[in-house]
This record gives sequence, C-alpha cells and structure tokens, in this order.
Amino acid sequence: MTRFDSATAVVRVGENRYAAELDPGYLIGAAINGGYLMALLQRAVLAESDHAHAVSSSYHFHRPGSGGPAEIETEVVKRGRTVTTVQATLRQSGRTVLTGTVATATLDSQAQPIYTAPRPEIPPIEQCRSFDPRSSHLADDGFLARVDVGFAPDSYAALLREHTVDTPELLGYVDLSARDGGPAEDPAAFVPLAVDALPPIVSLLTDWSWAPTVELTWHLRAVPEPGPLAFRVHSSLVSDGWFDENVELWDVKGRLVAQSRQLARVGR
Amino acid sequence: MTRFDSATAVVRVGENRYAAELDPGYLIGAAINGGYLMALLQRAVLAESDHAHAVSSSYHFHRPGSGGPAEIETEVVKRGRTVTTVQATLRQSGRTVLTGTVATATLDSQAQPIYTAPRPEIPPIEQCRSFDPRSSHLADDGFLARVDVGFAPDSYAALLREHTVDTPELLGYVDLSARDGGPAEDPAAFVPLAVDALPPIVSLLTDWSWAPTVELTWHLRAVPEPGPLAFRVHSSLVSDGWFDENVELWDVKGRLVAQSRQLARVGR
Repeated sequence: MTRFDSATAVVRVGENRYAAELDPGYLIGAAINGGYLMALLQRAVLAESDHAHAVSSSYHFHRPGSGGPAEIETEVVKRGRTVTTVQATLRQSGRTVLTGTVATATLDSQAQPIYTAPRPEIPPIEQCRSFDPRSSHLADDGFLARVDVGFAPDSYAALLREHTVDTPELLGYVDLSARDGGPAEDPAAFVPLAVDALPPIVSLLTDWSWAPTVELTWHLRAVPEPGPLAFRVHSSLVSDGWFDENVELWDVKGRLVAQSRQLARVGR
Repeated sequence: MTRFDSATAVVRVGENRYAAELDPGYLIGAAINGGYLMALLQRAVLAESDHAHAVSSSYHFHRPGSGGPAEIETEVVKRGRTVTTVQATLRQSGRTVLTGTVATATLDSQAQPIYTAPRPEIPPIEQCRSFDPRSSHLADDGFLARVDVGFAPDSYAALLREHTVDTPELLGYVDLSARDGGPAEDPAAFVPLAVDALPPIVSLLTDWSWAPTVELTWHLRAVPEPGPLAFRVHSSLVSDGWFDENVELWDVKGRLVAQSRQLARVGR
C-alpha cells in the first residue's frame, strides 16, 4: 500500500460516520494541505455511493487541519440512477475543518468527446524542473516529498522570479512521489490532491505566503490513465485580497481529466 | 419593486427557516430556471450573515423546481471576521430541490486589481441581437420575457446554426427586462440569475434540449455597477453525456464581476 493510499484511508465507525488519521507528512507549514483533505473526504463519499466516480465536488474550507485524528460525517442528499449526491463534513476536536458536497456518477472510460478544447503546449516531462524538498523552507519530509511536481522551464524561472510575469500561468506535471510508493491504486483518487498540490498562482505576482483556500470546486471529466498528470494553472483576477486559481489536468493520453477553480485569500 | 425583487423575496418564518413563493414566470418548460433559484437562496443566505456579499457560492441541483411555495432552511457553518459560510436547502413539498454552500464576505467596491486578465472583444450592445420571446417555443410571458439577452452577431448566427462552430463560445449582454421593472435594487442580487440565464453552450454543438445543471459554482469578484453585464460563455469538454459551461461577466466599467462554471448533462 502506498503512503497516499494509507494516509487517505477512512474507517467506517457507524452509520454515516467515518474515522481517519491525518498524516502530518501532508502539512504545509502549520496547516494540512487541502487537496489531501479532499482526497480523504472523497473516500468516505464514494463509500456511501453506488457510483464509482466523484464527478463534481465542491468544498468549503473553514479552519486549517492538523495531523492526528479526524471524524467524518456523511449524508446522502439524493440517490439517483445517474447521480447520487453526498455531503461530507470533516471535524477535528469537534471543530469543522472542511465541508464538501459531491455529485457521484459512473463515467465511461471509453467515451469519445463531442468537443474538447485544445490542450496548451506543455514541454515534455524530461525538460521540466523540480524544486528539491531538502532546499525548501518546508520540512525535508513534508509536503514537497509527497508529490513530485515538474515545472516547464518558463514556469520554473517565473517561480524563481528570474523574470516578471505578464500572465500568471504555470505548466508542468504532477504525480505522487515514487519515494512514497508511487501512484495511488485508483488514479482518480489522486486527482483531488493534484488540483491543490501546486504553488499558489498568486506567488508569481506577490511575495510568497500562505494563500488559504476558501472554496474549491473540481470536476472529474474522464477516468485518468495511470501516470503523471500534465497541468496548467492560471488566474483571471487578483483583487481586494482575493484570487481565483484554475487548474486543468490531462492524463498521459492527453485527455482532459479534471478542471478545478478555487477562490482563495492573498496571504499577508 | 421590480418583478425580480419580489419574485426572489424570502420571508423569515422561524430560526433558520424562510418561506418563498416561486414565480412561474421563471419556468423554462417544466422546470424553474436554476439561476432564479440561486438568486432566491442567496437572499436567505445573506439574511443570516453579517457580511454583504456572496463571494463564493456552490450549488447542487437535485430535482427540478416548480412554481408555488417553497421552504428554505439555513445553517451557519462558521462565522468569521473575513468569511461567514452558510449552507442553505430549498425544498418543495418536502423534497430537496437545491442545496448550496455560500462563503459570504464584504467586498471593497473601490479595490484596484493587482492583476486582471484581458476582457475578450465584445461588440457594442447596439450591435447585438435578441430573440423575440413571442417567436419562441417557450411561453410568451415565460423566462425569455424576464431577462434581456443580446448576442454578438457571430453568436446569434451560431445559435441559429447559420454556420458550424469550431469553438463553442457566446458573447453578448444580459440584463433584467425593462418590461419587468428593470434592474434589481442591488445589482449583485441579479448575478446568480445572470450566470444561468443564457442558452446552454452545448446547444451550439448538439440539438437543442433541456440541459440539466448538476453543479454550479460562481464567485462574485467585484461589486457590479448598475447596468447590463457583458458575458462570455465557453466550454472545455463535451463528453460522456457531460459538459462544462463557463460564464464570465463584466460590468459597464469593464470590471470582471463574476466567474461561474457549471457541470451539466447533455439533454436527450
């Protein structure tokens, strides 16, 4: 079992109730990564549904999560033949950390798109560059060691502030770290982590700081093939202390597998 | 009082409980427009919050709504100095129609963006063309009479299928109908209706049909000035019976005031 799979395991402890142990290896500074929390909540949601996939997931983040025990409460809002919708709440020490509403359905892995927007040009993975977790201000065995992120050369230079940026955009590839046992057993289980595992797009425009997510919605558009996911991150507006961060992910077959948008606060 | 303001009024009938009367004038065929329902739920949400604006709103649609009485239940998930989050459920005859989670905050109408993506070229409103509600298969006094939508000439031609479409995109302007008493008292109250008042983008690619929304999240990015909102609608993927529809709205000052994305079913 990979670290990701065991770190996101949930145990059913009663009707509509699950227990989990949050792995401090997913901390970024003092807060657990939100993508990790979504991946965990998704396990409980799918356990409550007859459908295989979390196709549309909207999460609101209320408080930072920390390592240690957590409780999950679920409620099926509606069961349907096409869509079953499940609400889930993650609490630690009785305080609400994260609430989510997830529309589950069963995607056809053989579906042929009627329309698909062109994928941006993303350089081959061999040309991408990574930050060494050991050189980071984050812990050596912290979040950066969980997820491998390779940035396109332009994106890497932009993150290092080697040049100024007209359009905030990051391109590259994201995958679970081989050091942690590699890919998740179910490639779709990794997606909620992947859409929130990248540096805040606002860090291309402002000083680096924690950028707390207020809301994140993501859609699973196709069942991903195993392998690294190509990403594009961009933003439309940074204003009044708020920014949007949009992530698209493509699998190794070049198919759009996920779209996310989060609204977050510009850190101070 | 305009028709929109009275049609979206809610009456507090108890702790965390509101009553509303759904106006059948917002029906599209047999189902009430989802944007109208979001506008109505937003009234109850903001009544429960100390903050002025619904900055991030995620809604899941469970059943079609119909004209007549509805009950709304609210729950404040967390009260905060920056963000207060409220969940709301709309029921008719005891059945859940719509659930929403809304992060409320107070936006600064004088904020100067740090970054804003360029607005697409949208022809002036005088060059835009509208469908005559009386020539529609929808009722004469139905949804098309509630909202004025002017389409850019290319978009209008695309909707009429005068040419085939490489990229599904619609450009134009949307406003409450002058015939109904014109703009809402609070321009921000109209936004949730505006993001769901346009023809389904998928109708550029497939036969016209009802395209039920499963999930819609929208963000209020600035307080709109009174006046028509310019729009761009586009999609990234139509596949496996699902499509995403993305709407951006700009106010008369050219500021991005809202972004939405919905995941919906391709109608049959």
